Amino acid sequence: MSGNASELIDKLGVIVGPSHVLTDPELTDGYVADWTGRWRGRTAAVVRPGSTDEVAAVVAACGAAGVAIVPQGGNTGLVGASVPHNGEVVLSTRRLVGVEVDLVGRTLSAGAGVTLADAQRAAASAGLVLGIDLGARESATLGGVVATNAGGLRVVRYGSTRSQVAGVEAVLADGSVLRRWTGLVKDNVGYDLPGLLTGSEGTLAVITRVLFRLADPPADVTTVLAGVPTLAAAHDVVARLRHHDYPIEAAEYFYNEGLELVCAQLGLRRPFAAAYPVYVLCEVSGRDVESVAETLASMPDLVADATLDAAPAERLWAYRESHPEAVNAAAAERGVAPVRVDVAVPLGRHVDLEDAVRDAVTARFPGVEVVTFGHLAEGNSHTTLLGVPLEDADEATEIVLRLVAERGGSISAEHGVGLAKRQWLGLQRSDVDVATMRAIKQALDPRGVLSPSTLLP
Amino acid sequence: MSGNASELIDKLGVIVGPSHVLTDPELTDGYVADWTGRWRGRTAAVVRPGSTDEVAAVVAACGAAGVAIVPQGGNTGLVGASVPHNGEVVLSTRRLVGVEVDLVGRTLSAGAGVTLADAQRAAASAGLVLGIDLGARESATLGGVVATNAGGLRVVRYGSTRSQVAGVEAVLADGSVLRRWTGLVKDNVGYDLPGLLTGSEGTLAVITRVLFRLADPPADVTTVLAGVPTLAAAHDVVARLRHHDYPIEAAEYFYNEGLELVCAQLGLRRPFAAAYPVYVLCEVSGRDVESVAETLASMPDLVADATLDAAPAERLWAYRESHPEAVNAAAAERGVAPVRVDVAVPLGRHVDLEDAVRDAVTARFPGVEVVTFGHLAEGNSHTTLLGVPLEDADEATEIVLRLVAERGGSISAEHGVGLAKRQWLGLQRSDVDVATMRAIKQALDPRGVLSPSTLLP
Repeated sequence: MSGNASELIDKLGVIVGPSHVLTDPELTDGYVADWTGRWRGRTAAVVRPGSTDEVAAVVAACGAAGVAIVPQGGNTGLVGASVPHNGEVVLSTRRLVGVEVDLVGRTLSAGAGVTLADAQRAAASAGLVLGIDLGARESATLGGVVATNAGGLRVVRYGSTRSQVAGVEAVLADGSVLRRWTGLVKDNVGYDLPGLLTGSEGTLAVITRVLFRLADPPADVTTVLAGVPTLAAAHDVVARLRHHDYPIEAAEYFYNEGLELVCAQLGLRRPFAAAYPVYVLCEVSGRDVESVAETLASMPDLVADATLDAAPAERLWAYRESHPEAVNAAAAERGVAPVRVDVAVPLGRHVDLEDAVRDAVTARFPGVEVVTFGHLAEGNSHTTLLGVPLEDADEATEIVLRLVAERGGSISAEHGVGLAKRQWLGLQRSDVDVATMRAIKQALDPRGVLSPSTLLP
Repeated sequence: MSGNASELIDKLGVIVGPSHVLTDPELTDGYVADWTGRWRGRTAAVVRPGSTDEVAAVVAACGAAGVAIVPQGGNTGLVGASVPHNGEVVLSTRRLVGVEVDLVGRTLSAGAGVTLADAQRAAASAGLVLGIDLGARESATLGGVVATNAGGLRVVRYGSTRSQVAGVEAVLADGSVLRRWTGLVKDNVGYDLPGLLTGSEGTLAVITRVLFRLADPPADVTTVLAGVPTLAAAHDVVARLRHHDYPIEAAEYFYNEGLELVCAQLGLRRPFAAAYPVYVLCEVSGRDVESVAETLASMPDLVADATLDAAPAERLWAYRESHPEAVNAAAAERGVAPVRVDVAVPLGRHVDLEDAVRDAVTARFPGVEVVTFGHLAEGNSHTTLLGVPLEDADEATEIVLRLVAERGGSISAEHGVGLAKRQWLGLQRSDVDVATMRAIKQALDPRGVLSPSTLLP
């Protein structure tokens, strides 16, 4: 993008207004790198359209000029999918705002640039709940949440983002606007295009508006933080709570190593006088705190100690949610680059996977710290390796991903593929599978206008 | 298929064994027409492969010969999608059998030819439940259930079929085998191909094996049949049960006209001494029959009379489930062809839709009987018109579908498009939408091997 660059930039300025086309490196800097600092690209322009029509015109103009686009929402992703690796134009969706709740239809419609937290607050104001939550809620935008089929803390209760999408409006690679917007539970009229766009990581369309199903908020939520002897015991605690018919609203876990980092780095007080190998952070609903305490007391073989709170229990959640920040701070302190993986395995293989990862990684990289936390109900581990030499990061990642693939797991449970996992797609997806995905990409974006350097190898 | 027909038939015989290639019209007769008698095609051969590899070889051989295929399961569909309209080879999946339940992973894997009822029984034997149910359960096969994203009686509780599919094995149009089979809740590695194949009506792949998530069976189910004054009151009964925190396991409705047909045609006794305009058939769980009776007694403004049963309450379900049979029998008796539509609208428009349909249809076709039953929670009406002249069937259908589309509804809530609704796709899907679906079809089946005459216009 050099010869006709200024011509395209002028054209984009006409479409969105010159003040919404950023070319000054000082202004574009926040758009060309991800927040972890792992990915950094370059761009000639960041375009900030303010409506679906403007998005359509921007996509059409870039397509006509043969310039590729990377759509970007809150830029909170972890796999480099929103970074302009090869000089793509960045199409920021943050100006696509506006939230509306339909109380009769029990849906929330919003622009792609609305943050998850703003959408949660809009739902709550209407006495309902949006069943999607994740740590980056204040920055992550709904367009990105849908484009990445975001997982997070409430999948155990509401399923993934895809199962909550009731409608999508999106601009396709040729600049046309696709709209499926009935909000209906039953609508068997053709291929599930909203489901296909959900999780397509910006490679098939730029999502401009979304329609989510809302739910009734759970009654009588109790938050539990419990110390347990093993990861297997952590799973058993959740199983027994289920057996007692508690609706599980969240089920997280972390290890003592992580808790120590969190307390040291962020100055939190330890939750218990003693240290336990594993901690379960769990939300249940439907009964009062006393009943939950009684239920936990009935499993002394599993629960060594527990502290309970009526929700909202930010005090307890802080131990779990501060993990990413504490790990980053520890990495900076030690002067090492953290190697992060996000994987899932069938529940019956979860304990075995984490043992195998710890063994294999420390055998190959003696002295490396393995810090893991994650989501119990989906066998979803977020593992960070601290101390792997930078040049060995790919090797360390591959060690973990191979152990996952051998166990029938997912090499990316909820963060997506992006650039980070692209080279390992074949560990989990067959040649036929990859060829099928490529055929769909080719059919919907024959000129490679949308995020051409991510997802598919 | 004439010149090389016998050559292809020989080839198919080599692949599946000659006894599994049916060419005698006496044997193929049950495969070329649907059970309603509305659709009748013709075929040179019905092929009955016994494994995924055989399906792959059959598809490849037909593709090489330039002969199209229509996959067929239990042939219980209502939109003509499993009928060889243009002389296609019928690929019957009924020999793809075998069911297995994984108690740890809480999944059921099965061949595409297993009936829904057999899968339900396998899940029940393991103490779990498959959250899909519909009237044709003893004949409908799992491959068809997935290919049509079947709806039915349990969507209110478990969502549609798509949300319960945890894995799919399918043969693509070029004879290659696609397999996504992790069973994981979180697996963000590329496009959602299982979700795309679910509901694609045999046009993108032949589904050969399926993996479903199972659930715990509900405790303390009570079945309620209640007489209410209006459809609005029927919705209110469900809303109040929800307000009392009852999990709703099913929520059906029908009218007195339908009940009279059922009782007259099938010799059932009327459930109540008096007649009521509308009946709600509802299953709730989690509390005993006495509590449910008390709750119903607390809404005398809505519930005129009610009868309750601990599940299984076939006695009560018979009134609702006999509707299709009774309507067919009544049509035969009156010597008319029934015009059936399956539609859904946003809940807030449901009462208005049914009023508008009755008014519009009887204004255009005086004396026509309108018999409606359906699923309350999804605003899903199954309406049959009795007495429309055969040559006016399309006009009558279009009157209903236009009223649905004007209300933001679905012209096919759960039966799919097939040949029945193809001409009206544009009422609900935009040109961009249809073009996008066509691009996907073209990308995955460029030679039109799979069900080329259904779904897309």
